[in-house]
Amino acid sequence: FTRGHHSVGIVGAPFWKGQPRAGVEEGPDLIRAAGLVEKLKGQGCTVKDYGNVSFEEVASDEPIGGAKRPLAVGRANEQLSNAVSRVKRDGHTSVMLGGDHSLAIGSIHGHASCRGELSVVWVDAHADINTPLTSTTGNIHGQPMSYLIHELHSKIPAIPSFSWLKPCVRAKDLVYIGLRDVDPGEHYILKDLNIKMFSMTELDRLGIAKVMEQTCDHLFSKGKKPIHLSYDIDALDPSISPATGTPVKGGLTYREGIYITELICQTGLLSAVDMVEVNPKRGRSEAEINSTVSSAVDLVLGCFGRRREGSHPSDYIMPMP
Amino acid sequence: FTRGHHSVGIVGAPFWKGQPRAGVEEGPDLIRAAGLVEKLKGQGCTVKDYGNVSFEEVASDEPIGGAKRPLAVGRANEQLSNAVSRVKRDGHTSVMLGGDHSLAIGSIHGHASCRGELSVVWVDAHADINTPLTSTTGNIHGQPMSYLIHELHSKIPAIPSFSWLKPCVRAKDLVYIGLRDVDPGEHYILKDLNIKMFSMTELDRLGIAKVMEQTCDHLFSKGKKPIHLSYDIDALDPSISPATGTPVKGGLTYREGIYITELICQTGLLSAVDMVEVNPKRGRSEAEINSTVSSAVDLVLGCFGRRREGSHPSDYIMPMP
Amino acid sequence: FTRGHHSVGIVGAPFWKGQPRAGVEEGPDLIRAAGLVEKLKGQGCTVKDYGNVSFEEVASDEPIGGAKRPLAVGRANEQLSNAVSRVKRDGHTSVMLGGDHSLAIGSIHGHASCRGELSVVWVDAHADINTPLTSTTGNIHGQPMSYLIHELHSKIPAIPSFSWLKPCVRAKDLVYIGLRDVDPGEHYILKDLNIKMFSMTELDRLGIAKVMEQTCDHLFSKGKKPIHLSYDIDALDPSISPATGTPVKGGLTYREGIYITELICQTGLLSAVDMVEVNPKRGRSEAEINSTVSSAVDLVLGCFGRRREGSHPSDYIMPMP
Ligand SMILES: [Mn+2]
Ligand SMILES: [Mn+2]
Ligand SMILES: [Mn+2]
Ligand SMILES: [Mn+2]
Ligand SMILES: [Mn+2]
Ligand SMILES: [Mn+2]
Repeated sequence: FTRGHHSVGIVGAPFWKGQPRAGVEEGPDLIRAAGLVEKLKGQGCTVKDYGNVSFEEVASDEPIGGAKRPLAVGRANEQLSNAVSRVKRDGHTSVMLGGDHSLAIGSIHGHASCRGELSVVWVDAHADINTPLTSTTGNIHGQPMSYLIHELHSKIPAIPSFSWLKPCVRAKDLVYIGLRDVDPGEHYILKDLNIKMFSMTELDRLGIAKVMEQTCDHLFSKGKKPIHLSYDIDALDPSISPATGTPVKGGLTYREGIYITELICQTGLLSAVDMVEVNPKRGRSEAEINSTVSSAVDLVLGCFGRRREGSHPSDYIMPMP
Repeated sequence: FTRGHHSVGIVGAPFWKGQPRAGVEEGPDLIRAAGLVEKLKGQGCTVKDYGNVSFEEVASDEPIGGAKRPLAVGRANEQLSNAVSRVKRDGHTSVMLGGDHSLAIGSIHGHASCRGELSVVWVDAHADINTPLTSTTGNIHGQPMSYLIHELHSKIPAIPSFSWLKPCVRAKDLVYIGLRDVDPGEHYILKDLNIKMFSMTELDRLGIAKVMEQTCDHLFSKGKKPIHLSYDIDALDPSISPATGTPVKGGLTYREGIYITELICQTGLLSAVDMVEVNPKRGRSEAEINSTVSSAVDLVLGCFGRRREGSHPSDYIMPMP
Repeated sequence: FTRGHHSVGIVGAPFWKGQPRAGVEEGPDLIRAAGLVEKLKGQGCTVKDYGNVSFEEVASDEPIGGAKRPLAVGRANEQLSNAVSRVKRDGHTSVMLGGDHSLAIGSIHGHASCRGELSVVWVDAHADINTPLTSTTGNIHGQPMSYLIHELHSKIPAIPSFSWLKPCVRAKDLVYIGLRDVDPGEHYILKDLNIKMFSMTELDRLGIAKVMEQTCDHLFSKGKKPIHLSYDIDALDPSISPATGTPVKGGLTYREGIYITELICQTGLLSAVDMVEVNPKRGRSEAEINSTVSSAVDLVLGCFGRRREGSHPSDYIMPMP
């Protein structure tokens, strides 16, 4: 019950082109402005902020099949993969601040290129596992997992700007938490590949404690791999995090959201975190934006040892009169 | 995990005279305007909308004993009973859109007149089981169950406009979920008749999953009868469904409300639904009205196969590059 | 399932000097204005309102060590101790309406001086167990438990205005519920003294029903002592009770808050209640103030037999036609 120590490397990814709504590129700097680095240090972490990735401008970027802005998204994720890979080589737990959820492609790829096989815990209202061909919108933020999963490789059309990408996650190493808006094609894939998922129905049936127990059981039964936690802020209920592009009623409570991070932290296996889809332009008031941003900060803090029961340094000495 | 098929017959009941607050008669058309029929079809249901019942005007309508507007309420429920009975004869699962909760008298009677003995699941902040003699308000929307229960027949004074009505539900076939504002006379009846109830205290103690398990156990231990689900929107917490006549703090979460419908759907026994007490005039803003109406829609969708984990047609074919 | 009978003695403590924010001294009269006495009587209680304690003015009041306004707080609590002691001698369950939480010093001391050893259930976002020397703010509302616990006596510097106070609670007789903002020194104390606590993490893990079971198990394993329930309104989530000085995200739901009172009531051992930290000046609207005050009222009602499933007099007679 004393404090652990974590070494954190932060990469900002101010990128929105995996979806159509401007504003989500402001996420990284907003989350920093809410004091993320200071708060992490305050709870005993070492923090290195690698700054924001400078994404290259892309001129003409026509859709390819069911993928919009393929050049921009492909190139941005290649850059991000390199950035995350460097953070991991430097020995930190990576924290990627998005930006939209298409960035998980680069974040997970960069992580895996350094650490090999990973467990992925995807906390989201959405499964983001459409292939370009099952997608009805063409927004790549609804597709990242399909690019990353070995078992789906044959279902993904070749997109030149993604030629650098090789699948790096096995379906059995993926767990979803918080699903409540899943497309038919996605549901087919989830069932066909027997992917472990805890939709809000399972949250209601089992409660968050059993969901986390079963999440850990599922992942650890395949051996203890480094964990990549990909956290879409829209997993939380819109009453807590309204400033996001695709809010869906009936989400995780703030407490459930935090509990997930506390339990993932306690595994001792957390190796990289994505915190994505905070979009201030989707908030209807300062209060809505603040609640969303401060929840994102709290979730990251929970990943790195913050405990609601409190903590104290192991060398704490009680002051005497 | 593929989609089931449901045949749904919708009856609108724009009626308010079981209580004093104007506005609740707008419920049926508001719920339709929020896309109920299209959404039901979108999830694979066949839908027939029977339109709204045209309730007869009633001239003079003095209270009789503890029952206000007895002529209007008696005659409206007789009409509704016939309408619901027709929907059932046509082979649909009936969806009655209220209107106030006094309409459960006609809806349940019409259902029972076609299908015989029923299980009733009453989801409500209130028990609505005052007799005209225990009622302190005289509003019949607080009394419908007392008219319907065999065991209370001798406690109900004769009201000429209800002479068509015979009790059709046994106390052992009724389960309450969500109670938190129960009158002393109602509490006496619930205990005296040993009626199964899950008040918010039991919700807190057991959790919604065990409550639904025990609800099914209770009902099925008496044989598998068709289920009549009578859903008062005020069962949900006022933070979700504020636009209703008698909101009570500390209600069901949106998720608990939806979970109830998912579990009732899975029994395969759902035969009729009431969705009542949506009152736009009680909302203090568009947002409050929209939240209430869209919750009502989502609850009905949950009754007919919508699953938060998603679904796909059984003949779904994965598109290949 | 019929009503119990409770004899309640109310003491108002309009005092704010345990913390810096004006407004909390308006708590007692606001809670009364919301109908507390009438509602208690309406649910079958006998109620005596002893009015508000007239706290003496204190001229110069410089901090002593880590304790601000030590004269005012010391003297106010001495007066309150006498007031609560009188209520207990008169045979009532004491209800102390604060005021800030420093008042727990006098309330618990007065209670113990009449009833001897107590169990203390402290429901709060905060542990309020800083010593004057571990406190970083000097606000005594964050310190009351440290003055009261036998095991901490040697850690507390002598403050003349508290010379009347002797420790009266054993660490093993204290249970915390709702913690989520605990200082390092407090956390050291909680662990060092092995104090039972249910932080929000345990709430999430166990659920409120098991938390209350384990609370009772813990207390009763040491023999059945009178229970002092010290309820800080900031234990509830700020979405329910925003009008308070130090709100903290991720609190108890209204339902969990009420469930605690129902279970404490059912022990039959409740002997005194504090309801503190309602501060209307911290509400940003009438709605926020009303929600906070009415929640405080409901929590007190829950302590004295109000049940969400309803109740009826044991001599209730069903009216017949
Ligand atoms: Mn999402
Ligand atoms: Mn996502
Ligand atoms: Mn109701
Ligand atoms: Mn009702
Ligand atoms: Mn507090
Ligand atoms: Mn406190």
